[in-house]
Amino acid sequence: MRITLAVDVMGGDHGPSVTVPASLQVLAEQPDLHMHLVGDDALIEPLLARAPAALRARLQVVHTTEFVTMDDKVSTALRIKKQSSMRLAINAVRDGAAQACVSAGNTGALMAVSRFVLKTHAQIERPAIMTALPTQKGHVHMLDLGANVDSEPRHLLQFAQMGSLVAAALDGHDQPRVGLLNIGEEEIKGNELIKQTHELLRQSDLNYIGYIEGDGIFKGEAEVVVCDGFVGNVALKCSEGVAKMMAGKIKEQVNRNLLTRILGALAWPIWQGLKHEMDPGRYNGASLVGLTGIVIKSHGSADAASFAHALRVAITEVEKDVPGLIARHLSLPVVEVSPAVSDV
Amino acid sequence: MRITLAVDVMGGDHGPSVTVPASLQVLAEQPDLHMHLVGDDALIEPLLARAPAALRARLQVVHTTEFVTMDDKVSTALRIKKQSSMRLAINAVRDGAAQACVSAGNTGALMAVSRFVLKTHAQIERPAIMTALPTQKGHVHMLDLGANVDSEPRHLLQFAQMGSLVAAALDGHDQPRVGLLNIGEEEIKGNELIKQTHELLRQSDLNYIGYIEGDGIFKGEAEVVVCDGFVGNVALKCSEGVAKMMAGKIKEQVNRNLLTRILGALAWPIWQGLKHEMDPGRYNGASLVGLTGIVIKSHGSADAASFAHALRVAITEVEKDVPGLIARHLSLPVVEVSPAVSDV
Repeated sequence: MRITLAVDVMGGDHGPSVTVPASLQVLAEQPDLHMHLVGDDALIEPLLARAPAALRARLQVVHTTEFVTMDDKVSTALRIKKQSSMRLAINAVRDGAAQACVSAGNTGALMAVSRFVLKTHAQIERPAIMTALPTQKGHVHMLDLGANVDSEPRHLLQFAQMGSLVAAALDGHDQPRVGLLNIGEEEIKGNELIKQTHELLRQSDLNYIGYIEGDGIFKGEAEVVVCDGFVGNVALKCSEGVAKMMAGKIKEQVNRNLLTRILGALAWPIWQGLKHEMDPGRYNGASLVGLTGIVIKSHGSADAASFAHALRVAITEVEKDVPGLIARHLSLPVVEVSPAVSDV
Repeated sequence: MRITLAVDVMGGDHGPSVTVPASLQVLAEQPDLHMHLVGDDALIEPLLARAPAALRARLQVVHTTEFVTMDDKVSTALRIKKQSSMRLAINAVRDGAAQACVSAGNTGALMAVSRFVLKTHAQIERPAIMTALPTQKGHVHMLDLGANVDSEPRHLLQFAQMGSLVAAALDGHDQPRVGLLNIGEEEIKGNELIKQTHELLRQSDLNYIGYIEGDGIFKGEAEVVVCDGFVGNVALKCSEGVAKMMAGKIKEQVNRNLLTRILGALAWPIWQGLKHEMDPGRYNGASLVGLTGIVIKSHGSADAASFAHALRVAITEVEKDVPGLIARHLSLPVVEVSPAVSDV
């Protein structure tokens, strides 16, 4: 299967110095893969100088000097920077030149531009940000992680439907268990959004297992966890924060005195295993689900190994035809997008 | 300073077998401390059999056979179980027989009964649940953690005011930094609740440092973090879930093979230090702030050491006169509560 990815190489904290080597690495792994590296060729070309000709032949530099910064407003990305590396990479998906776009850029801008250029499926009102997170037993897919901060029950139902389909496709589950993120106190259980969504989910044909609490996410109680983007983003960031804090506390304990430093050094195989297990890079690559094309968002601070993972997520979504799957299973036609709509 | 605590010994997963030994331990630590142990004396007395007479003299068993279960509805706790150990312990605070109540029982019931019996300060519309959490640099006070799932901006302002006062009193800070929990995506930054609260906080005389993201909580970016109870409870439970998952992954890595088991055993001083640092017991004891009396909620699964910590939190709040502090500094009179109002 010939796959072409459009990579916004200018996005993220490190730009081409991370995204270009990562792209070369993944090209080397996948013989049928092609890439458009979208960005400033003065920055890209030097990084390609030592690339084998066989890889070089499968990539194409799409030159532009405009790019979306982390501080750019969504409106700037949308209405002014029409030649940005992010915009051109998304355009490539719309035009069929690529099957997926990957960017480590500004999430708000990426979501807005993707939504404008690619549109959502006809009956999906809002796209959502979805990612896999580690659990005690494996991993869980969670959405929305920040695209929407005022979701209504029907939006959460749509997120659940999309989440279930994508989790099934990616992991080969038959009927992924879907949980609705809630709090556990009796009587004050949940707000109105949650109660109404609960009813919609109960009436759906999903494998809905009911409410799930914050700690249940990481116990692996469900394959898909659904929530509003505000709550989901807080949950995601808190999780990152706690994991980092614990890693820091381990280091502190190791550095406590000479004995602990020696014991810590001896325990190296344990740290290596733990590092691998908890490596955020293994989970890098959030999917903007609900769009007619595949857009993968990498963490802005991703290193080359992590960015490479986001590229692999894009490849898997192309192989599984995630947008087609959503369109077919939700009995929705894929919206035809005419090139003219890019003219904001 | 003579302090009397009313302890609901029937609450929590383990009941008197945890709460009574914890009470004896703290009594032994504090020579001026007195306690009412409220619960079934048939269960309590055997646990007191070997207590030194000097401790026994400072505690009083308040016998009742009724108690609130984890599955009881709030309405049951409030309208039917009027002789429950939880209710009697809270009544003791209202009647001045004790200066604080501690319970590991059903949070929803504890909040509802406390609010009904003790009332909030005149201009505090809703009490909030507040606790300390570990950070990279020390700890942070966070509220609300689940008392309110549909807070309005003025409620969050009140939480911030109370949180700032309590943090200042407990930790000796002059002007604790107050952060508002939000998500970081540009343009879609925050929902309406957050934006309006942000304005109220900016206009307040608090040391408001603006938005804080989930990971910022654990970096120690603020001394007080304010949020709606739904978001706060999810954040709290996610944090617990991630910490447990990481502890599990460490164990898995240690048990991977004979070598890692040996290295893991050698690294014992590191684990001990880490266990101490991350021990949830060190942070057990959430405060129901905004009430005219002190009510401390222990985690239901607390062991004796953790429950003892919740008792110590109660003692500190009595010493600092947290309700009086809130009443004075918010220029609000403490509401006089007549005994008749307990007659639901």
